[in-house]
Amino acid sequence: MQALVLEAKHQPVQYKTVPDPQPAAGEVLVQLKAAALNRRDYFITQGLYPGIKLPLILGSDGAGVANGREVIINPNINWGSNPNYQSYEYNILGLPKNGTFAEYVLVAESQLTNKPSHLTWEQAAALPLAGMTAYRALFTKGRLGSGERVLITGAGGGVALFAIQFALAAGAEVYVTSGSSAKIEQAKALGVTGGANYHEEDWPKQLATLADSFDVILDSAGGAGFTPLLKLCKPGARVVIYGGTLGKIPEVSPQIIFWKQISIMGSTMATDEEFAQMIQFVNKQQIIPIVDSVYPLAEGQQAFAKMADNKQFGKIVLKIA
Amino acid sequence: MQALVLEAKHQPVQYKTVPDPQPAAGEVLVQLKAAALNRRDYFITQGLYPGIKLPLILGSDGAGVANGREVIINPNINWGSNPNYQSYEYNILGLPKNGTFAEYVLVAESQLTNKPSHLTWEQAAALPLAGMTAYRALFTKGRLGSGERVLITGAGGGVALFAIQFALAAGAEVYVTSGSSAKIEQAKALGVTGGANYHEEDWPKQLATLADSFDVILDSAGGAGFTPLLKLCKPGARVVIYGGTLGKIPEVSPQIIFWKQISIMGSTMATDEEFAQMIQFVNKQQIIPIVDSVYPLAEGQQAFAKMADNKQFGKIVLKIA
Repeated sequence: MQALVLEAKHQPVQYKTVPDPQPAAGEVLVQLKAAALNRRDYFITQGLYPGIKLPLILGSDGAGVANGREVIINPNINWGSNPNYQSYEYNILGLPKNGTFAEYVLVAESQLTNKPSHLTWEQAAALPLAGMTAYRALFTKGRLGSGERVLITGAGGGVALFAIQFALAAGAEVYVTSGSSAKIEQAKALGVTGGANYHEEDWPKQLATLADSFDVILDSAGGAGFTPLLKLCKPGARVVIYGGTLGKIPEVSPQIIFWKQISIMGSTMATDEEFAQMIQFVNKQQIIPIVDSVYPLAEGQQAFAKMADNKQFGKIVLKIA
Repeated sequence: MQALVLEAKHQPVQYKTVPDPQPAAGEVLVQLKAAALNRRDYFITQGLYPGIKLPLILGSDGAGVANGREVIINPNINWGSNPNYQSYEYNILGLPKNGTFAEYVLVAESQLTNKPSHLTWEQAAALPLAGMTAYRALFTKGRLGSGERVLITGAGGGVALFAIQFALAAGAEVYVTSGSSAKIEQAKALGVTGGANYHEEDWPKQLATLADSFDVILDSAGGAGFTPLLKLCKPGARVVIYGGTLGKIPEVSPQIIFWKQISIMGSTMATDEEFAQMIQFVNKQQIIPIVDSVYPLAEGQQAFAKMADNKQFGKIVLKIA
């Protein structure tokens, strides 16, 4: 089969012919129609992940056909028995197990779910990893309710965009930050009430003027920009951290946290149950994932270059068949 | 009546005769048998609280007799309708309303609860504010379960000691930190498994050796000592912040928080419902508050000096009648 293979760190993925995978007992062969990139895939090519084994077919997100059934793939492997956290055996399709940037992938039967019928193959492939991460962060951890006010930082990222769409569908009032004013306008076109560009020094004041304060805040940046978020919290607010691209948070006031009774909660990925709930929610609300761009599998290197450039608004998708 | 009156900030409280309080409609007069100091009272004398009105009778904790009934007082005034956080109208008996360091105090009927029959007046007076704060922090926020491992920092403080007693009664395995090795030994005598002195540089390593890691951590210090606490968290751990005596936390890693799915939750005081649950728990478990020392009301200045000295292990109590 044809696949995108990472042969060495800090090198582009290679489009090449590899042996067709052979299902072992309990495995199902999925013929992929589309796959989607996550920042995780890019980080792996940069050597920024523990336990990298090469050569490796990357890719956690995929949709295709298994035994005549149209499916999308839950990328979870061995979450474990406790819904509060992943087990030590937990891993994600695409490392160390070969992933979805190929014509075929082997998964467990339990990883398969019917493809939502209102989605194209490309839209369906865009959904799993970012969608499930947004769902757990927003609902299980953030406990976002209808009519509440939520701030989602870094609009444009895959998880952030699903969080925006899910929050709007749940009846919340949504605000964003972004380093790009164009992305803020794109978010407004989706139904977001307002936003602020974090390259402008007074962005926290801009948000306070627009929205006063927030019931829920989702952040994946950390760094110095996290500290002002706590001042934008309503009493009883829930702040969910699902990433930390800007590194350590340099200053946190315990007084703000206990006096406002704020909860700061870490979240990553989601349980199999949350994956199923997320798919139900997408079906019920007829949510359509936002696809930034589609590349043929053979042009996978351009797809990775697009992600490295960080200008996308929505998912970068590979069309496979 | 006789009372301890704060007449000016940064001055000792004065033991003096003041007019007897007269109940307005809906108020009940309590003849106090004992009262207890909280750090809040000391902070108010130092001017370290907003909205100080003078002259003022301090005191949030008290037990006594109201219309022939033996009662302890819930110090909450106007928590409000949302259990997740106190309303803007919320205040605590003893500021701005005159408190319990007097022969009589006026409270609402709803603030009265039967005194636990297994407690002396001094023990009962020691319970309310610190007990309710520990209860909310440990159970509502920390969701501590039987068999879980909990770290309580600053053993010796009023809230920390109740948290230790409640956690032991709930079947948890309890560890502590303190700046005093003597206090760690006193905590062990209560049933605590082990502890580390935070004046020793390798205290986090000592705790890791003793206990590996924790399901729940209660902290009221903040500051630079908070950062190592996150490394001592099990996956899914709950960290509850109910104070910040050492000020800002200088460095927090978002990666640890999201990868371990840690929750950091602020907590202060408790709802009226939690106050009632705490009293039930104390009755059922026959918990006896630890009284460090008892002073006659007339010697209130010595009681405040004892608190300023910070060497107590347990509550500092005033005997009134």
